[in-house]
Order: sequence, then C-alpha cells, then structure tokens
Amino acid sequence: MVQMTLQTAAEKAADALARLRVEAPSVHCLTNTVAQAFTANCCLALGLRPSVTDTANEIAYFVRDARALLVNLGTLAPDRRETIGIAVDLMRDEGRPWVLDPVFADVSEPRAVFARELMGYRPAIVRGNKGEIAMLAPTGEDAAAALSAETMGAVVQTGAVDRIAAGASRFEVMNGTPLLAQVTATGCAGAAITAAFAAIEPDMAIAGLAGALVMSIAGEMAAREASAPGSFAMHLVDRLAMIRPEDIANFARIRR
Amino acid sequence: MVQMTLQTAAEKAADALARLRVEAPSVHCLTNTVAQAFTANCCLALGLRPSVTDTANEIAYFVRDARALLVNLGTLAPDRRETIGIAVDLMRDEGRPWVLDPVFADVSEPRAVFARELMGYRPAIVRGNKGEIAMLAPTGEDAAAALSAETMGAVVQTGAVDRIAAGASRFEVMNGTPLLAQVTATGCAGAAITAAFAAIEPDMAIAGLAGALVMSIAGEMAAREASAPGSFAMHLVDRLAMIRPEDIANFARIRR
Amino acid sequence: MVQMTLQTAAEKAADALARLRVEAPSVHCLTNTVAQAFTANCCLALGLRPSVTDTANEIAYFVRDARALLVNLGTLAPDRRETIGIAVDLMRDEGRPWVLDPVFADVSEPRAVFARELMGYRPAIVRGNKGEIAMLAPTGEDAAAALSAETMGAVVQTGAVDRIAAGASRFEVMNGTPLLAQVTATGCAGAAITAAFAAIEPDMAIAGLAGALVMSIAGEMAAREASAPGSFAMHLVDRLAMIRPEDIANFARIRR
Repeated sequence: MVQMTLQTAAEKAADALARLRVEAPSVHCLTNTVAQAFTANCCLALGLRPSVTDTANEIAYFVRDARALLVNLGTLAPDRRETIGIAVDLMRDEGRPWVLDPVFADVSEPRAVFARELMGYRPAIVRGNKGEIAMLAPTGEDAAAALSAETMGAVVQTGAVDRIAAGASRFEVMNGTPLLAQVTATGCAGAAITAAFAAIEPDMAIAGLAGALVMSIAGEMAAREASAPGSFAMHLVDRLAMIRPEDIANFARIRR
Repeated sequence: MVQMTLQTAAEKAADALARLRVEAPSVHCLTNTVAQAFTANCCLALGLRPSVTDTANEIAYFVRDARALLVNLGTLAPDRRETIGIAVDLMRDEGRPWVLDPVFADVSEPRAVFARELMGYRPAIVRGNKGEIAMLAPTGEDAAAALSAETMGAVVQTGAVDRIAAGASRFEVMNGTPLLAQVTATGCAGAAITAAFAAIEPDMAIAGLAGALVMSIAGEMAAREASAPGSFAMHLVDRLAMIRPEDIANFARIRR
Repeated sequence: MVQMTLQTAAEKAADALARLRVEAPSVHCLTNTVAQAFTANCCLALGLRPSVTDTANEIAYFVRDARALLVNLGTLAPDRRETIGIAVDLMRDEGRPWVLDPVFADVSEPRAVFARELMGYRPAIVRGNKGEIAMLAPTGEDAAAALSAETMGAVVQTGAVDRIAAGASRFEVMNGTPLLAQVTATGCAGAAITAAFAAIEPDMAIAGLAGALVMSIAGEMAAREASAPGSFAMHLVDRLAMIRPEDIANFARIRR
C-alpha cells in the first residue's frame, strides 16, 4: 500500500472543505448544555445546518434529516443517554456516520462505562483529549493508534498537537493556538465539525484531519487578531465563516 | 374600516419602542437551552427584565411577576411541557399575553401535536418560520393569514421578508440581513422581544410589527459594522441597546 | 482586635489574585443553564479550571477533583437539587469551601426554602443581591451583616455597591459599572470566581472582597473600551484574562 504524501493529505482536506460548503450537511448535535450555543454558531459559520434537540421522544424526527450525528457526553442527563441510544441505532441503520466525543470519560467512571458501551456501536470517529482516549484504549502507549486498531475506526486525539489514527493512516497536526483551550466548547465544536466532514468525505482519516485543520487554522487566524479569549472566541467564529480551502492547503502543518 | 397607512404603522411601532424602554416589562422566557443566554442578553440590551426558570414547581412564582410570556418549543424536555401548561394557564387567568414560537414543529410530529394543542390556548401572537407556520395553518397557501383567521390571533411569519397577519391587518417587513440566519437563536430572541411588545401595545399587529422591525433594523445596523457572524452577533446586541424610536420610523421598509 | 486598614485589605486581595493565577484551582460549578457557558469562559480567562456536570450519578467524580464548589440555584431542575446535596456533603467531608448563590430566592418560595436548608450546611460564602440576601437574613436591616452573624459565614451582597460581611470584617466595594447588570450571568460568574478565591485564601472576608474587586475592576476596564453590552461582555472576558494583582491594589475603591 502506497501512503499518500502529506501534501496530498492537506489537499484532500482542502477539497473536503470545498465540498462541505457546497453540500452544507445537516449535523445533529447531542451535546452538553454548555457547548450547545457555541457549537451551533461554529457550525452555522461554516455553512452547516445544525440541530440540537435531545429528548428521547423527538430524536428520531431530527436524526431522520441528519447526515451526521455528534454524540458528546458532557452534562450527561439520564434522558440524553436514552436519546443517544436511539440516535446511534438510527444512524447505523441508515449507514450514516456518527462521532463520539467522550468528554471527561477519564474523570467519571459511569461515563467511561457508557463510552465503552458506545464504542461497540462503531462510531466513524472518536475524538477526545489524551486522557479520554487513553481511558478507552486497550493500552496507554500510543493510545490513539491502539484504539483505532481495536475498533477499526478513526481516532482523533486533540491537544497541542492533534493526532489522527485511522487504519494505516497517521497524521499529526501542529497547527493551533493555546487560546483554543481558553475558550469553553472549542473542542466540542470541533467534534461537530468533524462529524460534518464524516458526512461528505468517505475516508475517515481525511475527515478527521480536515476537522482538526479547520479548527486549528481558523484559530491561528483568530489569534492574529486577538490575544485574549473573549475577542478570540468572536474572531474564531468569524474565521470559520471566512476560511477557504486554499487556507487549509497553504497553512497546514502536518507530519506523521 | 379605514386601514392605517404604512407610515402610520411604522410610527406606531416606533412609539411602541419608546414605551418599551420606559415600561421595561418583565418577560418570562420558557425557551430552549441553546437560546437562553442569547435571548436574555438581547432582552437586557433592550432594557427588558427577562427571566428563564423552567421548572414546573417554581414557574408560578416567576409568571406572577411577568407581564409577558414566551413559549418556545426548542429542546422540549418533558418537564418543560408541564411547565408550559401551568404558565399559559396563569397568563390567561391574568389576561396577559403570551407568544408561541413553534420551533421545528414542521420536523417533529409530537411537537406539532403539542403546538396545535397550545394554539387552543390562544397565544396573542404565533411567531415562526414558513415551514412552522404552514404546519399549524389550515392551508399552506398564505398560511400566516389563514392561521390568523382561524385562531383570531396575530401571526408573524419570519424569513427574508417577515409577514404579519392580524385580523384585517397585513404587513411585510423587508428589513433584515442574511447574517441574522447565521447566528443561532436570533429568531428565538426576536420572539422574546415580540412578547415584550405584546405586553405594552394593545394592537397585536403593531406588537408583531415592532418586534420584527427592531430585530431586523438592529440587524441591518450591525451588518454595517460586521460581515461575519461572530462579530455580527456582538454588534447586534450593541445595536439593540442603542436603537432609537426614530431609527424604526426612518428605516422601516414595510409593504402590505 | 486590630482591624486591617483598607489599603492592607486591597493588597491582600491583590495577593490572592497572584496566588489564584499560580494555583489555578479547579472549581465545580453547579449553575443554571443560562450561565454555564459564560461562567466557564470567565473562569478559563482567569486561569481557573472549571467543570459543570450536574447529574446526581456522576457528581462525586467531579467534586473529588474540585478545590471549590459553586451552588447557584437558577433553573433549578429536580435532579440538580439531589446533585447539590451530594456535592455539598462531599465538600464538607473534605473540608473544602463551597459558595451559595441563591438566585431569585426572593421570587420563588420553594427555592427560598431550599436555600435556607442549604444555609444549614454552612457555605463558606453566600453571595446574592439585596433581595436574595434579605430573604435569607433574620432581619432586613443590614441584612448582610445579620446573615453573617447568624451563620458565622461570610456574606457578599452584590449591587451598585458590593457589601462584604464576615465576622467583624466589613467592606464596601464601590468599583463597578452599570453595564455589568446589562449582561446576563455576570453575577453568576462572579460567584464562581469568588468560590475559586475561597479555595486559595483562608480569610473569607478577603476571598469575598477579591471576587468582588476582580469582577468590578475588570468591568470598569471593559467599560472604557465598550459602551454597549454586547461588546462589553467580550471585553470583560478579555480583561479577566489580563487583570493583574497591581490593578487590584491600585484601582480598588473600598470603604467600610
């Protein structure tokens, strides 16, 4: 198997952004109450069509129209657990992708148990920070790759460097800014964007890479305009609206 | 019956804004978790006194002090359904207005059923987008007018052009900017503002018109300062704080 | 007992801010759904580590890692009442401080009953507006001092002038701007920040004072850059990231 070059990978991610804007996929976001508004605004800025209803008796009507689903485990109310089960089953029945963001699975034991159970329903991509991925992986060493190998799905491990593992593909994204960690829900919004990429891009390594690049390059652009987190958050949303495929191709800093 | 001129209508809406600032009505907002903070901030910017508690055992204490009530059906948790029933009954007992925003009633069947049931409790104004109004109206053709005729209440159908139908009154508001649709909860906040107008203005056609004009003219002003949705949202809140009655009178673009 | 001078108090508050930035305490915020995102962003801007999960079955895992706890009674869902009980018990067992923000206890009778019950669990600091403190205090006259005397804990009464009462200590903070009241959740965020100060400062009078000074001086700085609430909110978060101990020492306007 011939590996694609890093330049090819960046160009594929750029191309995925071009298609994302044209297709404007609907993304249903089952996410925590802290992140709902910021996530919706980041999705709208990119041209996506987000929805966020999280009640068990209505979820089927929203998932029916959704091309991708985000399942984020923050502020995990009992009703949302039931809702997640219904939504994931429906997406699988339709062969549509869903993304798992196991927020704080490394802190809360019941949440880790639930996250592991959900892994059995084969998310297209799992996206979490180092501690969260390590909690779900069979081994702590190179946890992203180990989890990907075990589940046959893609894994995006976020951090100062984002690591993507999917099958034989490996990418590390060095773009980003520390300001992203100083605004709540940037990770949650990044996972929603990654879910949207999973809807329009068949290669999950490229979908995960594109989600990481869009958020971190938009963040770099915003950080040039703002050095404190309040104004940075505003510019980040603006930059998600303005970022172009050529920005991805030109500014991506990827290694294996 | 002599119809008021469009200039008179704009001046009445401007006068309603002047009174809104003086009276600073309390508005209780039973709304979705995505929209709560932005709605509260838009209301505060206009000088209103918003509250948002949505628990069944406490709602009576908040509605007691509210001059208007917003019922928005987004993220419709089971407990909020019960809360809505109590709140609507209390407002009707006191002869105070309430506004229904049937978010996504055209997507979710249980929500459409609940919205139709609520229509029987006579909201002063129903405010929704084209699909939502069509779902509730007896006919899809000129749905706003048909729904208004059936219910004897006012209807505001939002969109690129906002359409108001109330009794024999018809207005179309051509103000606005596409950026309003790129920020989550601007419609929800607009419905809360419309509820406040219903508290201080006896003519529901004018209340609905004033709500539509304030949001869309403030939006136009904000769009002159910002071309992307992050900064636009910030300027929109600023403009809601600064917008004057004469801005409504001068910049309104209304037709029938 | 020799009272500390006001200059000494301001310097102690400044010193507390210096230590807050170094220690970066974790603060668990059981707060209303309107305030969650803004509270988290204010905490992150100051360098704190906030978390907000509010489910009864997971709260123990989050409180275990929390150096301080905020209990805010807004949008008080039934499940959150149970969660609050568990969280407060755990903090007391560990000898760690918790702060009560009895939002709208003066409006809702069931909430006042619950707030009074919680007072029996000895919050390190109660922080509320005049009506809320008066509802909990044994007498309406000098309610903050009366409540502090009754409970042996510290009380921060917020308003145009913030009043702090703790044992024999009394402070009045004259810093601030009316814009703080035009943005939702600034009080809720201020209470979370105050909880963080309670984690790193043993004297609750100084912790309460530092919380009041940081929010009101950051507010004054933001008000120099913005005269309307949308842009003010953004600058406030920026200023919380930038405010230095010497700003507290230099700009504090305190009296007894």
